Amino acid sequence: MSNIKNHQKIRWLISKTSDAWIQQAISHPMEILLDHAHCERKAAGVALQLMFRYVSEPGLSEVLSPLAREELEHFERVLSILKTRGEKLKQLPSPPYGAILSKNVRKKEPERMLDSFLVAGLIEARSHERMSLLALYSSDIEIRSLYEDLLKSEARHFSIYWNLADERFDTNNVVSRLEELAIIESDALVELHNEPRMHS
Amino acid sequence: MSNIKNHQKIRWLISKTSDAWIQQAISHPMEILLDHAHCERKAAGVALQLMFRYVSEPGLSEVLSPLAREELEHFERVLSILKTRGEKLKQLPSPPYGAILSKNVRKKEPERMLDSFLVAGLIEARSHERMSLLALYSSDIEIRSLYEDLLKSEARHFSIYWNLADERFDTNNVVSRLEELAIIESDALVELHNEPRMHS
Repeated sequence: MSNIKNHQKIRWLISKTSDAWIQQAISHPMEILLDHAHCERKAAGVALQLMFRYVSEPGLSEVLSPLAREELEHFERVLSILKTRGEKLKQLPSPPYGAILSKNVRKKEPERMLDSFLVAGLIEARSHERMSLLALYSSDIEIRSLYEDLLKSEARHFSIYWNLADERFDTNNVVSRLEELAIIESDALVELHNEPRMHS
Repeated sequence: MSNIKNHQKIRWLISKTSDAWIQQAISHPMEILLDHAHCERKAAGVALQLMFRYVSEPGLSEVLSPLAREELEHFERVLSILKTRGEKLKQLPSPPYGAILSKNVRKKEPERMLDSFLVAGLIEARSHERMSLLALYSSDIEIRSLYEDLLKSEARHFSIYWNLADERFDTNNVVSRLEELAIIESDALVELHNEPRMHS
């Protein structure tokens, strides 16, 4: 993988994606695309779930509803590429990544709210980093161009979750919890998952 | 309510909304608006929930994802009107309507799928009928214009659920189950709920 440039870490993330992941991902474009469709659908689900859970929280629905719409738009775009390539949306076994992060969301409020924002933000940050890599290294023009387009709006998503946290919690508290969760996030990716996934 | 015209029943519904509801709704515009915001949010939630439950069902996500986006767009529009009027999004106790319909969704597949589509379609049909009434009878120009705009796209939603059902199940079966559920839907509205709601 000597042609892989020394790519920058995305703000929030404490480790950058391994060359092994890039190699695995670009060798399995259809599986990554299918998993990506599920990621967009799930990201919309997370935003909507937070809107349901914190229904009276001022300023929350105002930013999460447009974010959910954007994720659904991306989902539809990926779905249509899958279709033109004769692939259907089908269930894929999830890698352990999401479950590891969810397990670390504290159960009691307001810690649960803070952790939910930070975990959602970390996942968005990792998605953004990996889409940048796919936009750079994929050998497929359509896929490269898909990720280049999606990146433009995905870039805002982790900032939205950061702001949701920072507006409601003491900044030192947010930063120190973020550091803890970022270590967990990074550790969850140390071992390359045997199946190609966006977060493997 | 002699000024209320003899409005048409919407396809699917077996009873039309009472004049008493219209009177109650137009006398409590802010409460109806707030409840309407929740209805749009919940309608997006229902579409997304079906996308999660039937993730591999061909042709389902393709129509429910844009529908969910549209509901969220409406939610945001209602939210912004609430805000300009100094009202915040806050929890409202739900009328029994939704729970009565959910209780009648059969638990076993594929009946559960059919009933879920038909119940979602009936709720959309009732929302559409009531928005038409608010567009006609509200004394508030902004609210009348809001509902006139929303109606244009809401009109398609019950057809989407009808098509989802009709493409997958025997038409006679769909029609006879729809008739049963439409009776339950209509019965759930016979007694006017004491609090003004979109589905009271």
